[in-house]
Amino acid sequence: MSEVKFEQISPADFFYRNRDIAGFTNPSRALYMSIRELVENSLDACEIGEILPLIKIKLTIIEEKGETEIYRLYVEDNGIGVDAEYIPRAFATVLYGSKYSNKQSRGTFGLGGTMALLYGQITTNQPAIVISSKGKDIHEYKLMIDIVENKPRILDHKVHRNNNNWRGTIVDFTLEADYQNSKRKIIEYLRETSIANPHATISFIDPKGRLYLFERVVNNVPKPPKEALPHPLGVDAEAMIRLLSETKARTLFNFLTTSFQKVGAKTAKEILELAGLPLNANTKKLKHEDVTKLIEAIRKYKNFRAPDASTLSPIGIDLLKAGIEKEFQPEFIEVVQRPPAAYSGFPFIVEVALAYGGKIPISDTYQLHRFANKIPLLYDERADVSWKVVFEKINWNNYKVPKEAALAIFVHLCSTRIPYKTVGKEAIADRPEIEREITIAIREAARALKNHLSKIEKKEEKKKRLNIFIKYLPKIAQFSAKLSNRKKIPSIEPLLKSLGLEHIQIEESTS
Amino acid sequence: MSEVKFEQISPADFFYRNRDIAGFTNPSRALYMSIRELVENSLDACEIGEILPLIKIKLTIIEEKGETEIYRLYVEDNGIGVDAEYIPRAFATVLYGSKYSNKQSRGTFGLGGTMALLYGQITTNQPAIVISSKGKDIHEYKLMIDIVENKPRILDHKVHRNNNNWRGTIVDFTLEADYQNSKRKIIEYLRETSIANPHATISFIDPKGRLYLFERVVNNVPKPPKEALPHPLGVDAEAMIRLLSETKARTLFNFLTTSFQKVGAKTAKEILELAGLPLNANTKKLKHEDVTKLIEAIRKYKNFRAPDASTLSPIGIDLLKAGIEKEFQPEFIEVVQRPPAAYSGFPFIVEVALAYGGKIPISDTYQLHRFANKIPLLYDERADVSWKVVFEKINWNNYKVPKEAALAIFVHLCSTRIPYKTVGKEAIADRPEIEREITIAIREAARALKNHLSKIEKKEEKKKRLNIFIKYLPKIAQFSAKLSNRKKIPSIEPLLKSLGLEHIQIEESTS
Repeated sequence: MSEVKFEQISPADFFYRNRDIAGFTNPSRALYMSIRELVENSLDACEIGEILPLIKIKLTIIEEKGETEIYRLYVEDNGIGVDAEYIPRAFATVLYGSKYSNKQSRGTFGLGGTMALLYGQITTNQPAIVISSKGKDIHEYKLMIDIVENKPRILDHKVHRNNNNWRGTIVDFTLEADYQNSKRKIIEYLRETSIANPHATISFIDPKGRLYLFERVVNNVPKPPKEALPHPLGVDAEAMIRLLSETKARTLFNFLTTSFQKVGAKTAKEILELAGLPLNANTKKLKHEDVTKLIEAIRKYKNFRAPDASTLSPIGIDLLKAGIEKEFQPEFIEVVQRPPAAYSGFPFIVEVALAYGGKIPISDTYQLHRFANKIPLLYDERADVSWKVVFEKINWNNYKVPKEAALAIFVHLCSTRIPYKTVGKEAIADRPEIEREITIAIREAARALKNHLSKIEKKEEKKKRLNIFIKYLPKIAQFSAKLSNRKKIPSIEPLLKSLGLEHIQIEESTS
Repeated sequence: MSEVKFEQISPADFFYRNRDIAGFTNPSRALYMSIRELVENSLDACEIGEILPLIKIKLTIIEEKGETEIYRLYVEDNGIGVDAEYIPRAFATVLYGSKYSNKQSRGTFGLGGTMALLYGQITTNQPAIVISSKGKDIHEYKLMIDIVENKPRILDHKVHRNNNNWRGTIVDFTLEADYQNSKRKIIEYLRETSIANPHATISFIDPKGRLYLFERVVNNVPKPPKEALPHPLGVDAEAMIRLLSETKARTLFNFLTTSFQKVGAKTAKEILELAGLPLNANTKKLKHEDVTKLIEAIRKYKNFRAPDASTLSPIGIDLLKAGIEKEFQPEFIEVVQRPPAAYSGFPFIVEVALAYGGKIPISDTYQLHRFANKIPLLYDERADVSWKVVFEKINWNNYKVPKEAALAIFVHLCSTRIPYKTVGKEAIADRPEIEREITIAIREAARALKNHLSKIEKKEEKKKRLNIFIKYLPKIAQFSAKLSNRKKIPSIEPLLKSLGLEHIQIEESTS
């Protein structure tokens, strides 16, 4: 008889064994992911504190090893800092994080920062340094990850005086990497991050000492998203059971009106009626079937108001415009922000920009720039819902956009829950509600672009017509002078002026 | 000052919150994934026991709920069964599994079966039934998953007598699903699974009672893959530390020769010399730097033999041919099996088949069928390394394949570690070693196809020439009869016979 060994592994061990799925596929992608995850943590740490972000990244080469090298990666921010007691777990425990609340944030999985350190550890066998302060003492930890147990190993912990009231976090570690092959993506990532976060200053010093500086173009901090109660439509059996076990409400009626957003007395009554449950049913004595009935009633209920959008923090029309103008200086730009919408009880907002001309190169594949919760997505473009809309759904011909055009399309989705297809956070799933909003937004912006292109077209036509005019006017003038036997050729200046063409130089007729 | 709450979540909770990344994106995809994960567990359970698989799937509708429905999914196999004590954890604990060993298997993450049950639970709030026997008693469990704690909740456990010596496993649970939109993929999945596993019989009864039967075409069971020691190149710092803590060897020299494959006395000595470590260094007293040195020496060492391929179980040329012929009846088929290769210390084998004509439809996008460890991959085709090779690298024109052709390309990769891009196991990452092997295999098969197409081309040309011949021969015969004043027109039969054309009907000349 064949025997099978069963084994339980920790989540750290799972991601150690399957780092491909977190995007740490090879030394080039792993460097990109490490920078990305740490920058995103930094931006979140600033946003919560309503701080203008100042992020410093430095990559130095430690050792050449033939195909790949060992690098040291240093990322510093001026965010709110991490409480000393949480530092070891926040950076050396997988699935330990602060991003599990019901509001928009860049990180989602409680995974990214730790994955970077885990990758560094398994490729170089060296500990990581994490330094952080909330404004008082500065704490410096030397950390490794106990992967089997999924917990931190603290090799050293120093407390420094903070004479300058420094506040922020520094992560400093070594990893096997390939900068040569990731350089383009890293710079592109930072550039697009600064487009979506025009209030941030990000500097990057690369291994050759070159400085890439992305300076802020606006000085106002976006309003941070608020946390909110869950919307009933975003709650499944599991979430319902958890809410029931946590509630202090004794009756189902009170539970519904205090544990959810958008549920007032009227709605609560209607739901309970639909479920066939009494208003005063005891929350702590509910039977399993009762929970099922309650959830089914919520699904059937048709009159919910849309989820609260104060949990969201869109980029905003002005900031998005400023970010794009700074990088592309387009001749035309149109930004559309859609009103909040929802899928499965999770609110979201779509923002779209179309930029035309300027520094955008003319190409038969228009540029598509994707953002989710203010971070750029650079890989797996074809698997993304935006790609589907832009290249399969929209007929650009209808909007007078030629096959080869200097067109860049920007799509930003913000949500309390971005439906990523992968842990690597690269492609957004094509939930129908999201697809619809993106389509509407692009069509609206495309109509403005069409007007612009029509105007250009008309101007061109007019110019063409007038060019013919200009060419023959002097001859007509000469001819009419001859005909009338006048010596002086009549001036065509007044005529040109009336056509708005007085600035155009008329070539001397040589005949 | 802003405060941040930190929280640790269990892996079950992680996948509950992020089921999109495990492929459970929506009710249609979730049904496909559930069937897939359970079928793959079943095939693995048969392969280990060298049993001819007989897998029965039944999907019945329980309740219509408007857009989606509640279904009951039943999957039964005749595999080796699961030990009673392991059943609850094997099906109701995430990251608890039997697939963590160093050999090829379909499952990889210890996740799939449990994810299906977890999805069923959160969408219907109902427990799952799992019945299994190894040939003696039959154990029946009613299970739910404690998601917060990541452990099983056993609602019921019955032991039945096993009068018929039944052996196998049954999983029976309810889930919210959308069969209408997943039907095509499910049938395609089963069909392709039977191509890659022509020794398996799989039946599927759909909600309308229609039977889809995929019968085995061969009766020999493929040799199951063996487990082997790790190859040194597949071992990073973390794995090295684990092996060191587990070894009974006291010296580094003994450790290297007993804990790894392809490391004999000579190799071990050379590695230790390269690392600058003594042969008799005590394995239990190694310093942190010593481990780093050892790993670096292994990376630098150039003379390793390739990893052992007995851990692999390819489909085989005959079986792959049989599977494809059964489904497509092509006019031409060429199967290429490459010798074992390796990436990062993990062995792999590439098998490729090109089929032409028969039931394959003529199209300008050739059919690409992807398989990994004998399972078909149906989603995210464009993100897969095979897509890159077939549609971006290979110039089919060089092989006389026209732009529109009845061509189907089959690529099978087997490895102890498939570098999937996602937990949903849909796309394979483009590791250069794998890309290279796939390219070589396709080119080899394509050359055979070219020969075939050349022959057809020549035959066609010959036929064309002869057709002209045939058309004019009777006239020439008539004419020559007239010329020579003979009444009887000479028979052209002997001439046609000499050209191999006696079977061709000659149209009566009407002139």
